Amino acid sequence: MVLEKETITIPEPTLKRLPRYIDILRNLTGKGEEYVSSSFIASALDLDPIQVRKDLSITGIVGKPKLGFEVKELLQSLLNALNWNNKNEAFLVGAGSLGSALLGYKGFKEYGLEIVAAFDNDPKKIGKRIDGIKILPVGKLTEMAERMHIHLGIITAPAEAAQEIADMLIEGGVIGIWNFAPVHLKVPANIIVENAQLSQSLAVLTHKLSKASII
Amino acid sequence: MVLEKETITIPEPTLKRLPRYIDILRNLTGKGEEYVSSSFIASALDLDPIQVRKDLSITGIVGKPKLGFEVKELLQSLLNALNWNNKNEAFLVGAGSLGSALLGYKGFKEYGLEIVAAFDNDPKKIGKRIDGIKILPVGKLTEMAERMHIHLGIITAPAEAAQEIADMLIEGGVIGIWNFAPVHLKVPANIIVENAQLSQSLAVLTHKLSKASII
Repeated sequence: MVLEKETITIPEPTLKRLPRYIDILRNLTGKGEEYVSSSFIASALDLDPIQVRKDLSITGIVGKPKLGFEVKELLQSLLNALNWNNKNEAFLVGAGSLGSALLGYKGFKEYGLEIVAAFDNDPKKIGKRIDGIKILPVGKLTEMAERMHIHLGIITAPAEAAQEIADMLIEGGVIGIWNFAPVHLKVPANIIVENAQLSQSLAVLTHKLSKASII
Repeated sequence: MVLEKETITIPEPTLKRLPRYIDILRNLTGKGEEYVSSSFIASALDLDPIQVRKDLSITGIVGKPKLGFEVKELLQSLLNALNWNNKNEAFLVGAGSLGSALLGYKGFKEYGLEIVAAFDNDPKKIGKRIDGIKILPVGKLTEMAERMHIHLGIITAPAEAAQEIADMLIEGGVIGIWNFAPVHLKVPANIIVENAQLSQSLAVLTHKLSKASII
């Protein structure tokens, strides 16, 4: 059974800006900076300073007059808001070209994401390792998810296989699905699906491009 | 100089739903279906039928009573709205794991996107081909973009290189940038940047997951 831990829900547009603040704060930490103002962050990201102040207020952290926010404190608080301070263990299903790219992506560690196993139905792939992560047969998906208490699944399989994979993940106890397949998944109401479909991002770009012509 | 071709701008949330409608319509075309109702589409995608009707109204196509929309006509009209009926030629910069995955992704053809060349600064990669696409030295980026009249650039390079690459693309005449690097690009007002950063999508998912606990 899935229950709400907190009552405060951060709106999605704010959530999507938080990784950008985190990038800036990590950069400042690397440079040894101790304080940062919301107007500095706003200017670095071409955002409205009022927007940035409002977003950062979800952390409950108050900046010091003339100094601003303590960089480390603000960073930790934002990482907590996204649960990126904890390790989110995930299964990846579909070890094709996109799946392999995600398996090889080092940046996920900074987002608290760890892909612990990958699954595929291609006998030529099963048993091999991609960037140290073993490819297992998709038939073992449900059993393994249950046994390893995995709550997060990443689907990088073709569209026609995605629904069946989602069902298997959910049966194994997965409650969050990061879906890269170009298909709408039918899931129970308590399951969280986040679609990371490139086509949506590309649609915005090509439409805008078609409306701009070079003379 | 960049001028507006049309005055109607489709709002972003609508634009992001259009690829999902296109997926459904392509599927129906494959099955030989001639007509489709907006309520069928709504049900397939778990969307509000009123929302779907409103989205589809941007095409100007009117459904026939009791039959609904003509599948092929609606599909072509949606493809036109996204400019996916035309070929958008693009350069990709950064032939690492994500870049290579995008170079190998066959689905882009369906979105009217054709990556015609890739660029990298690694001498070990330059001159090789990934899925038939030649890797060229990044120093040739501006000159080649200009010569080939490329208007679309895809940045899959590391964060620290992304701004310089964007500048080179823009100098070569690129007006649309699909940015996969986790960094905010500073560009002139007439340049369109669409960020496809995985971290934003993941932020929404991990935050929601952290608020749901299994008992």
